[in-house]
Amino acid sequence: MRVLQEILNDLGIAVFAASGALLGVRKDFDLWGIVTVGVLTGVGGGILRDLLLGITPPTSVQNWPPIIVAAVASLAIFFFHPTFTQLRRSVLILDAIGMGLFASSGAAVAIDQHVSAFAATLVGLLTAVGGGILRDVLANEIPLLLQPADLYAVPALLGAGVVAVGGTLSSVPIWVWLIIGTAVATGLRVAGLAFGWRLPTAGPGWRRRDAGT
Amino acid sequence: MRVLQEILNDLGIAVFAASGALLGVRKDFDLWGIVTVGVLTGVGGGILRDLLLGITPPTSVQNWPPIIVAAVASLAIFFFHPTFTQLRRSVLILDAIGMGLFASSGAAVAIDQHVSAFAATLVGLLTAVGGGILRDVLANEIPLLLQPADLYAVPALLGAGVVAVGGTLSSVPIWVWLIIGTAVATGLRVAGLAFGWRLPTAGPGWRRRDAGT
Amino acid sequence: MRVLQEILNDLGIAVFAASGALLGVRKDFDLWGIVTVGVLTGVGGGILRDLLLGITPPTSVQNWPPIIVAAVASLAIFFFHPTFTQLRRSVLILDAIGMGLFASSGAAVAIDQHVSAFAATLVGLLTAVGGGILRDVLANEIPLLLQPADLYAVPALLGAGVVAVGGTLSSVPIWVWLIIGTAVATGLRVAGLAFGWRLPTAGPGWRRRDAGT
Repeated sequence: MRVLQEILNDLGIAVFAASGALLGVRKDFDLWGIVTVGVLTGVGGGILRDLLLGITPPTSVQNWPPIIVAAVASLAIFFFHPTFTQLRRSVLILDAIGMGLFASSGAAVAIDQHVSAFAATLVGLLTAVGGGILRDVLANEIPLLLQPADLYAVPALLGAGVVAVGGTLSSVPIWVWLIIGTAVATGLRVAGLAFGWRLPTAGPGWRRRDAGT
Repeated sequence: MRVLQEILNDLGIAVFAASGALLGVRKDFDLWGIVTVGVLTGVGGGILRDLLLGITPPTSVQNWPPIIVAAVASLAIFFFHPTFTQLRRSVLILDAIGMGLFASSGAAVAIDQHVSAFAATLVGLLTAVGGGILRDVLANEIPLLLQPADLYAVPALLGAGVVAVGGTLSSVPIWVWLIIGTAVATGLRVAGLAFGWRLPTAGPGWRRRDAGT
Repeated sequence: MRVLQEILNDLGIAVFAASGALLGVRKDFDLWGIVTVGVLTGVGGGILRDLLLGITPPTSVQNWPPIIVAAVASLAIFFFHPTFTQLRRSVLILDAIGMGLFASSGAAVAIDQHVSAFAATLVGLLTAVGGGILRDVLANEIPLLLQPADLYAVPALLGAGVVAVGGTLSSVPIWVWLIIGTAVATGLRVAGLAFGWRLPTAGPGWRRRDAGT
């Protein structure tokens, strides 16, 4: 169980790092820039989580495996990126799994620090989306997360919330909630992709439709 | 007194959140993006304050009221934003009050943590302007705060400084300094708006005027 | 020794602040904006270092000298910037010294907090490059550090690594490692500038050359 979680977590870091490195390639960064954006995308959510929880130095700064995993994934993109752009669908699925795992495990780490269920939910959400926000801010783009697109943050919020509420209020072991939370977040994300679910914008078009015309 | 301060603080959060949500509407973010930018603008200054002071998890992550207030204000903008754009003057006044309150209360929170008067001044300033900086960085714009415009940060710095110096060096109760600091910051901001006070830029135009031509 | 280190450190802060203030001048910020970007560029790396290490409030927030040094340097740029643009080569050398000092001293501060050698290396790197990243994000530009250019982060990483590994594994006094680390980082940076060393990008041009055509 524990080993499986570690493997899935490293896979999540690798996929996140790859998304950062790919953006670095598209922006014509050099080797250093590509690996830096990749690493920060892969471990940035966990670092922000630890800063909010007062865990210093952050786990992935103190121990080398997460950053090495992220760096290797970024180097793979640097050398073989034309191959990866053809794997878009597989990458989306892996990213959905990574997001679900980060949201759930982030909330669980927060519960370990005895924060409120409200705080654990927010920390889980930030763990899942923080790396992507760092990636986009560093690449000087508006975070994807804020723009009209397939559901991403809402599944993360719900998955983290399941772990946070279940883990603080029930006596069911936390690993049960981790599985449920990851399934909820990843499942909703994949369903949203499959069915094209989107949130409304406040633009004039939507306002008009909303007014019944 | 205490209740009035809470109400004014929530009003400040709501006004800041509304400014973030309005920028989200203008940038065509979706419902999630608008609420996220609104919430981060409303509580971002307080979160940065707590991170600098080592208060983890930050107060507005641990307790739900500030984020709920910010989210409700953002939703109000989402649904009724055409109304709000006509209230520009009222919003500017409310924003000036919010800024003054955040600068003063930020400095007071810092004093509670036994930091230097210098640190309390900086922390008060960051509490007042941090949310707006986060808002602009996330929306991929140069922070308004850095651009030539009506005085904003200088009044916040002076208001925070009054609370920081008064609160650490005198025996006058802190609530007296909170009132004076807020009045200084908000008053200077409103006066600056009324009289069009601006700081110089380093551009050639200003250099020439400075040289007496 | 100690006094010399303080002087060199203040010189590093001043040069970093000047680079931030110059960008503020080019972006037509006003007096406040120029000093703010200057100060954040000068002390931002140290603040990020302290946040990662749990030192709150950060040293340069608690004590006024670093920010005053950075503010004075920024004001000098505000008033005399046409002079400074002609000193480009001297500024590059001073910046290389500041970078080397920040990378080494950042790693040493981290060792004092009993973190791993891996963490001390990363913290030293962040101390050296964090201010410049803050500067570019606030000015709404892609961080210079990520773009194809002369070596900057790699020398910082190696200098910080020398101090981190030497300071944790050997019994040689830390000031010896500080000198070696600074010499490594600054020396590599200057050599990179002199010989035009660059890292590859992942662009099609480089791929083709790499493939031997």
